[in-house]
Amino acid sequence: MREVFHQSLEDLQSRLVEISDLVTVAIEKATRAFAESDVALAEEVIADDAQIDAMALRLDEAAIEILARQQPVARDLRIVITALRVSASLERMGDMAEHIAQLARLRFPERAIPKGLKGTFRRMGELDVEISRTLGDLLRTQDLRFADAIRNADDDVDELHASVFEKVLSDNWKGEATATVDATLASRYHERFADHAVAVAKKVVYLATGDWTVAEEDIALAASAQDDAGA
Amino acid sequence: MREVFHQSLEDLQSRLVEISDLVTVAIEKATRAFAESDVALAEEVIADDAQIDAMALRLDEAAIEILARQQPVARDLRIVITALRVSASLERMGDMAEHIAQLARLRFPERAIPKGLKGTFRRMGELDVEISRTLGDLLRTQDLRFADAIRNADDDVDELHASVFEKVLSDNWKGEATATVDATLASRYHERFADHAVAVAKKVVYLATGDWTVAEEDIALAASAQDDAGA
Repeated sequence: MREVFHQSLEDLQSRLVEISDLVTVAIEKATRAFAESDVALAEEVIADDAQIDAMALRLDEAAIEILARQQPVARDLRIVITALRVSASLERMGDMAEHIAQLARLRFPERAIPKGLKGTFRRMGELDVEISRTLGDLLRTQDLRFADAIRNADDDVDELHASVFEKVLSDNWKGEATATVDATLASRYHERFADHAVAVAKKVVYLATGDWTVAEEDIALAASAQDDAGA
Repeated sequence: MREVFHQSLEDLQSRLVEISDLVTVAIEKATRAFAESDVALAEEVIADDAQIDAMALRLDEAAIEILARQQPVARDLRIVITALRVSASLERMGDMAEHIAQLARLRFPERAIPKGLKGTFRRMGELDVEISRTLGDLLRTQDLRFADAIRNADDDVDELHASVFEKVLSDNWKGEATATVDATLASRYHERFADHAVAVAKKVVYLATGDWTVAEEDIALAASAQDDAGA
């Protein structure tokens, strides 16, 4: 039974890794589509999101199947519940990539990326791609140093997010309302993408270190701190 | 054992109802704080969100406890998993109310509500309050007519959300960048609030009608349709 359970967990883990790989591709393409106003690439991201959703759904079904058949308790139970939550976060990360692609498509043939913020969004996109890739590494290896790297990169994303609002709300901002709307939404999507990755990383860390309750509280605190900075 | 399980489910249900009541208070106050630029009320919403987070966390612990001790299978298992997901959605609805309150606080003593959109945001706020209250009724009674009402009200929210962008992006829009940013974010928060309620309603409906997989697919489709309209 123990052996069967172990295999089931490996299956969940490899499904999570697989989804996170697709999410990395999605955010990488979405960033490029947004920067280069590449509507074909944007369409790809939008179409491919259905696959991420379907895989997350199948993972959830697999996790529920494990709960029903193998009736895990204690830490084993928490691992399976965590897989369900991580799957939900990855699915949302895919949605954020899709939203960024939708912005690019919506403004085509105009450039979605607002003038004067090109460098900022390029850097935000790079950071999100890096975060997503690192999250894949964390899920693959459970090496907790990857979690620190995600947190650090998220701090950088938060700073860039704040700088977008500073820029848009400064007297020098000459952007049209369209540019202001795009900057606001795109920045928010990038920031949420990174937030979800941090939430996943914390869940993985606390599963490894054992203190689940603290993890959730910590996430709530971190989320509200970020909200303060972000909204 | 069946009796114990039944009591456990009732406990989960009453916890969900309790959280949804707090969410209703939060969105009602946040809407008022945003409309009237009432910073004290905004502070209340922001402070009270910690209670919603804590209650959602305790509900999750109770659900995991039930899984561990009572090892439910089949439909019973899905009910407990659904409670975990509903709790996560309610927690996010609380966050959206908090974000709206944060916007009000951020712009104080200026009015956060952008000129020319006062009526739109008042109506969006009213709809979100109504949706939240109806969600409480649905969770309390499991009367599926409440789910239809939520869906209909969400359609109205989506229309208003689209109208905000139409307004902001029209040639007549004379708002400063601050007003554009506020309108964009506030509209998005209101729309997400309603989306989460619809997601919960669908979960409750499909638990009652039994077809879980369809529910998830349906939600994914509905979400992507809304995203197309919204982004």
